[in-house]
Amino acid sequence: MLAAILSFGILAVASDTPTLTYIPKHEELKYTFGGAAPSHHIKPGTRIVSWTEDCYDGAVTKPSQLPTKVIPPGHDNPQTGPFFIDGAEPGDTVAIHINKLEPARDHGISSFFPGFGALNGTDRTAILGADLPEKVWFYDVDPVKGVARTKSLDGTSSWEVPLAPFLGCLGVAPAGGEVRSTIVPDSFGGNMDCPEVRAGNTIYLGVNMPGALLSFGDGHYVMGDGEIIGTAVEGAMNVDVTVDLIKGRATPWPRIENAEMMMTVGAGRPLEDAARIAFKEMVHWVEETSGLSEMDAYEFVSQNAKAPIVQMVDPQYTVMVKIEKKRLPVRGGATSPRSN
Amino acid sequence: MLAAILSFGILAVASDTPTLTYIPKHEELKYTFGGAAPSHHIKPGTRIVSWTEDCYDGAVTKPSQLPTKVIPPGHDNPQTGPFFIDGAEPGDTVAIHINKLEPARDHGISSFFPGFGALNGTDRTAILGADLPEKVWFYDVDPVKGVARTKSLDGTSSWEVPLAPFLGCLGVAPAGGEVRSTIVPDSFGGNMDCPEVRAGNTIYLGVNMPGALLSFGDGHYVMGDGEIIGTAVEGAMNVDVTVDLIKGRATPWPRIENAEMMMTVGAGRPLEDAARIAFKEMVHWVEETSGLSEMDAYEFVSQNAKAPIVQMVDPQYTVMVKIEKKRLPVRGGATSPRSN
Amino acid sequence: MLAAILSFGILAVASDTPTLTYIPKHEELKYTFGGAAPSHHIKPGTRIVSWTEDCYDGAVTKPSQLPTKVIPPGHDNPQTGPFFIDGAEPGDTVAIHINKLEPARDHGISSFFPGFGALNGTDRTAILGADLPEKVWFYDVDPVKGVARTKSLDGTSSWEVPLAPFLGCLGVAPAGGEVRSTIVPDSFGGNMDCPEVRAGNTIYLGVNMPGALLSFGDGHYVMGDGEIIGTAVEGAMNVDVTVDLIKGRATPWPRIENAEMMMTVGAGRPLEDAARIAFKEMVHWVEETSGLSEMDAYEFVSQNAKAPIVQMVDPQYTVMVKIEKKRLPVRGGATSPRSN
Amino acid sequence: MLAAILSFGILAVASDTPTLTYIPKHEELKYTFGGAAPSHHIKPGTRIVSWTEDCYDGAVTKPSQLPTKVIPPGHDNPQTGPFFIDGAEPGDTVAIHINKLEPARDHGISSFFPGFGALNGTDRTAILGADLPEKVWFYDVDPVKGVARTKSLDGTSSWEVPLAPFLGCLGVAPAGGEVRSTIVPDSFGGNMDCPEVRAGNTIYLGVNMPGALLSFGDGHYVMGDGEIIGTAVEGAMNVDVTVDLIKGRATPWPRIENAEMMMTVGAGRPLEDAARIAFKEMVHWVEETSGLSEMDAYEFVSQNAKAPIVQMVDPQYTVMVKIEKKRLPVRGGATSPRSN
Repeated sequence: MLAAILSFGILAVASDTPTLTYIPKHEELKYTFGGAAPSHHIKPGTRIVSWTEDCYDGAVTKPSQLPTKVIPPGHDNPQTGPFFIDGAEPGDTVAIHINKLEPARDHGISSFFPGFGALNGTDRTAILGADLPEKVWFYDVDPVKGVARTKSLDGTSSWEVPLAPFLGCLGVAPAGGEVRSTIVPDSFGGNMDCPEVRAGNTIYLGVNMPGALLSFGDGHYVMGDGEIIGTAVEGAMNVDVTVDLIKGRATPWPRIENAEMMMTVGAGRPLEDAARIAFKEMVHWVEETSGLSEMDAYEFVSQNAKAPIVQMVDPQYTVMVKIEKKRLPVRGGATSPRSN
Repeated sequence: MLAAILSFGILAVASDTPTLTYIPKHEELKYTFGGAAPSHHIKPGTRIVSWTEDCYDGAVTKPSQLPTKVIPPGHDNPQTGPFFIDGAEPGDTVAIHINKLEPARDHGISSFFPGFGALNGTDRTAILGADLPEKVWFYDVDPVKGVARTKSLDGTSSWEVPLAPFLGCLGVAPAGGEVRSTIVPDSFGGNMDCPEVRAGNTIYLGVNMPGALLSFGDGHYVMGDGEIIGTAVEGAMNVDVTVDLIKGRATPWPRIENAEMMMTVGAGRPLEDAARIAFKEMVHWVEETSGLSEMDAYEFVSQNAKAPIVQMVDPQYTVMVKIEKKRLPVRGGATSPRSN
Repeated sequence: MLAAILSFGILAVASDTPTLTYIPKHEELKYTFGGAAPSHHIKPGTRIVSWTEDCYDGAVTKPSQLPTKVIPPGHDNPQTGPFFIDGAEPGDTVAIHINKLEPARDHGISSFFPGFGALNGTDRTAILGADLPEKVWFYDVDPVKGVARTKSLDGTSSWEVPLAPFLGCLGVAPAGGEVRSTIVPDSFGGNMDCPEVRAGNTIYLGVNMPGALLSFGDGHYVMGDGEIIGTAVEGAMNVDVTVDLIKGRATPWPRIENAEMMMTVGAGRPLEDAARIAFKEMVHWVEETSGLSEMDAYEFVSQNAKAPIVQMVDPQYTVMVKIEKKRLPVRGGATSPRSN
Repeated sequence: MLAAILSFGILAVASDTPTLTYIPKHEELKYTFGGAAPSHHIKPGTRIVSWTEDCYDGAVTKPSQLPTKVIPPGHDNPQTGPFFIDGAEPGDTVAIHINKLEPARDHGISSFFPGFGALNGTDRTAILGADLPEKVWFYDVDPVKGVARTKSLDGTSSWEVPLAPFLGCLGVAPAGGEVRSTIVPDSFGGNMDCPEVRAGNTIYLGVNMPGALLSFGDGHYVMGDGEIIGTAVEGAMNVDVTVDLIKGRATPWPRIENAEMMMTVGAGRPLEDAARIAFKEMVHWVEETSGLSEMDAYEFVSQNAKAPIVQMVDPQYTVMVKIEKKRLPVRGGATSPRSN
């Protein structure tokens, strides 16, 4: 356990917060968003101190194992939860404050699954010919240097990546009675694979079903934009979150916030549609916050946004749009005679 | 002129560098990549101290003018050049070192053109119903504070954006005798709208035609990722570049480099294709640089890349992929017994 | 009832076929693929003589009603069933022979839902500005002439369309415990909106869950390619099908067959991915049938396929690929000395 | 020469039509749309009796030749022309009546080019790993049976395809001084690869440059929808067309017409954008023709269109939308009391 050493989060939880401590047994893990009975009922404001298994269902324990041989079908991205949030109803919003995330193992795992990835044929971008070969990389977690380190497949080269842990999956039950695989991101959150689902940030998810049915999983120790090979440096994660409920506020698509930034996440295909969703959400968030007209907010976001490709490998791609809060428009202020 | 005040570039040009000083007259501007007679012949290693008009062909001089009424058809993104580089042949690479860029006017202009933009119908994403209305924003350039500042259309709000000047257009003549509009980015560079075409960086473009026929234009004082409204904060630019020629090295897609970063640019539609191009180029660049196998380079880039959406409004979208050089694999080095 | 007059199907069902006659009550209709308890258990070979409600849940009964005001949320495309097919297991295939389909009402309904359609902004192709207005068209079904007939919204013009009834929805439960909305098409069939799901044809769907859990709905009296406004001429349908089970044959994506044609259906976004799936499936089907190599089958399909856009409005788009069986390669036969 | 035997066209040309007979020499062929000096000036109404080389520049003469080894770079789809049409100005429309097309050789050629095609990686859909191998198929043209016939690569199987000759390329010079490769389709026509560019049909192309600069090439003896392997059954073609000029009518995207059908062609990526263009054009054509409102025309096209994928291999994909003229709305006529 690296908990005492690595601490990426901002731990400032009031001492009288109701706290649920829960380490799921393997047989308690879930493999869908929606459709599973809650593991617990919690009150809004509850802190959850927990743990989640890696995306491989914990089945890959040494580099010589091929994930496709050892993971039971449909057991990708096992979820801890779901948590039924008392009083949560459709039209409300769940706010998840991530207090702390820390790698729960001394190694992370990355791999290429044939038919999954951004630079190869997939089940949707269907092509003929041979797949690329299945490959596995084990990374050592170095808590002192704050990096994950691995070797090339032939053992002659090595590289390291700064640790930046986040949860690949964080979601609620979808609307309309849908039940979705844990490899899918959508308006309900899910497998967003978004690096800003990290300690110090608050994630807002709209409630679709009574109790919201919140779950999390798919610990990522670090990931590049695009997640192009199909996996991050994956690993089990110690998770410390506080879950609040905002009554009467709808959140059509996931939003993320901290002291400096406001962020939206869109999911879809083609990638421009994922981006359009995230950008439109941001235009509207700026309108709500600043009172700008839609056209002014369109212009403001156009000049101020950061928009990384989050992942382009899941059944829907995800794009994030970020705005620095200090750049938000202010009432009055521009006094130059040249201004329109 | 703000030259004495604003200096975004790294000016370290050897004193004996051959220098071409050239401020084009309006009638010397070009509106295509390829197809135009060179304005000058230069030797490799020449420094060009020059200027380029804004994307509006200089026709918009006050906020009350609608760009669609005052810009002659086809006069978007006027180019300075093209420069015929002596000795440049197909299969070579032109390296453009950007010494300095500085806003050449005290104001920048942004606007929405009906039928052009990321969150509205366009000539390709063809939809029915009414277009959004044409709008213009003038920004004051504040060289002391280093920001551009504007007001909302109703004058009640204002915002400012930190200046980060770059060239929206930098390109050579396309291959195969093609001549392309200056609103198009592609493998020849062109209207990449890429914020890393900025002072301090070197851009590599593959040569397709004898002399390369390099040109630049479309000064951007600052732009958000995606350029979603269709324009940056646009303005005329003082340009100081040094142009080198690398014989016998082909560059299929634009690459950008500085001391810290290596970057690739892809162009295409849908947006995932632009990303695939940039990512594949980066995988190959890492292979060339580090000696990794293709699968290892795929994994390395997957965990280390930054991949912002550059723009999703031009006839082809652009995506950039960035890698920190200090993260590149090294020979040997990983000694943990856990590593594969 | 037009049953006695209109007969689009090929009714050649053996007299000793076990037959289930079932007209669902409204409260028995289902709104998902997967996740619902079966309405009946049937043996393979059972004929089902039934009926299904229209896509509007039967809630729109006159042109002055706006669908968005009268349809309960999530009640699109109500399903008849699901039918649990005894003995069906994952890895098997269900074969649905459509004996007869006939419009069950004397009128069909089409409408535009704001935010849904191919030539307007949607929840995924997110744009700013105003939506197009909600509109409804009622069509008279003329069984003598075999057309549906309607008027323009201002009543001054009229047009008619030849009836060509099919089921917009035909699907089984998805894999992995997923439950999907009835507006979604995917590898499990679902809301394919495919005009070849018509009388005289056999549809093959791979089984994902025990019993397959087959259902149908969304009667279409006629629809153009693309379904661009978001709806066909929609109406309740009398349905007569025979359901067979093929043990031990997997069917990854839906296939359709009759005496003359073999057809595949792909679903995805962007549209080229839906097409790639359908084309790859057809290449493989030709390989299986003819013994051609993959490259030869690629060439054969390239020169022989018909590939209409089926719909480009649902959460995933659908494309169909068709091959005339009589064109399939034969062993030997080409004797020209010029051939390779 | 098969001219005397095969006659796919409708030959009804008035006897006093001015006629240009022109068989280009190889060195007269062109490889761009725009940018080439006209081969001839013709008056509107001129009949052109001519010939065009195959897409391989005539360089592949036996199955053992690999096209990538024998075709000079940039020599795809050589064009006959361009023809300067006297009096044609931007804003006018050229109407090309195709009187007759006939295969000019006794064999056609198809091939797979690595990096080009719909079910493999390409320069835009960039993937890692190995390309599929280059392959060539020669087809015998059987004028008696009206088919093209080939063998599998191992010689054990054969198939035949009914001849349906058309011109893959028919285009004018692009707007704005652009010059485009002959593998590109766009609003100027070009490499549309559209099977309705066939004898008996009239193609309308908007004029962008004085004289229009019309050219044609890329004879296709037959092609399946999608052209997925990247080529049709390709061959030199005898071409007989009459070229008219319609003054003062703009045609933003290509339209095709015959006695029964009206057809639009869109080009773009992703494929849904090509479709959106073609559908929007058709909605507007129906509005113009019938006087319907935009919403009514949207509904009419939605229920009546055929929309085949034309090709999904060129730098822009093409989709065609077809409407039967006899289905067009009529004034008045719908008398049912149920109608809205």
